[in-house]
Amino acid sequence: MKPPRVFSRLTESLQVLPGIGKKSAERMAFYLLSYPEEGMMIVESLEKVLSEIKFCSICGNITVEDPCSVCSSSDRDRKKICIVEKPMDVFAIERAGVFDGLYHVLGGLLSPLDGKGPEDLRIEEMVKRVKEGLNEVIIATNPTTEGEATAMFIRDILKTFNVKITRIARGIPVGADLDFADEITLLRAMEGRMEYKE
Amino acid sequence: MKPPRVFSRLTESLQVLPGIGKKSAERMAFYLLSYPEEGMMIVESLEKVLSEIKFCSICGNITVEDPCSVCSSSDRDRKKICIVEKPMDVFAIERAGVFDGLYHVLGGLLSPLDGKGPEDLRIEEMVKRVKEGLNEVIIATNPTTEGEATAMFIRDILKTFNVKITRIARGIPVGADLDFADEITLLRAMEGRMEYKE
Repeated sequence: MKPPRVFSRLTESLQVLPGIGKKSAERMAFYLLSYPEEGMMIVESLEKVLSEIKFCSICGNITVEDPCSVCSSSDRDRKKICIVEKPMDVFAIERAGVFDGLYHVLGGLLSPLDGKGPEDLRIEEMVKRVKEGLNEVIIATNPTTEGEATAMFIRDILKTFNVKITRIARGIPVGADLDFADEITLLRAMEGRMEYKE
Repeated sequence: MKPPRVFSRLTESLQVLPGIGKKSAERMAFYLLSYPEEGMMIVESLEKVLSEIKFCSICGNITVEDPCSVCSSSDRDRKKICIVEKPMDVFAIERAGVFDGLYHVLGGLLSPLDGKGPEDLRIEEMVKRVKEGLNEVIIATNPTTEGEATAMFIRDILKTFNVKITRIARGIPVGADLDFADEITLLRAMEGRMEYKE
């Protein structure tokens, strides 16, 4: 006796998900079998997402309407764009309410080891938007190795255009302790120090 | 701007899966959005599994037909049952072709820390099958802390019945090196030593 065909097909299809191997897929499949209502909820919500959600043709964020509510808003500063890795980064900045311009979602970071090059990111679309005339491009990729490499790459591409290019500050998170900060964060905090203005 | 409602609902429903937190759920949801064909495959196979797969009313294994092909087979020794934790264990033993009796799937192991007690396992059903008259019950839960505790618990319950109770051997896996075996495995290998028969 082998596992039923339909069951094996489910575990195989779950294995395409990032970070899910054979054992996790089996564990997930058994869980869904044991809690069929939750399985049906996943089916329904996934079907809805696949049919209703698209990527904004301007900024690349996920949206129900294209263009998205930020790109189509008249209240935003259309001369500033903030470049981020992924849609959740847009929502994080929006939650904080600290930016009033538009966004550009790259859809990933440069990562040669994973075979991710510039052609896999929305770099061309970004250059096109910059060419249309902007005052400032804020590069807000994460301060990780890949995020910094992607930021440098973008800076190099954009420096030939007449646009101010900035990078979000890296430093000690508010509420944290210097004693626990790593050396590179401390270096960035020093480099990014600002003079008190009176 | 917040993530679209349908999207948040998908990430929430994915978080019910074992081992999946908020970040993994978001990563999975974005992956499915970027590869909608694979998302549709999951929808289809999950729907099929939920509608076609059931648990065998005798052994508790997953099956398309109830009772399952093992329980309804006339070629198997119906006087021996092998007790395992989960369906995949049945398929592992079947793949090896080393057992010709029937199975009993517990659907988990005793784990007080996770709030899993005897009432969460198919213990009552097991006792009922033993009462119907068997020659041998082979306890084949994993040799882990929880697997051993569950095995002891089952042994204690079944020892009042007139049935031979055995435990699968724990020892050095075939092809492995004594030098890499842990102490408890070596202890079990010694305890379980067998005399050569001529």
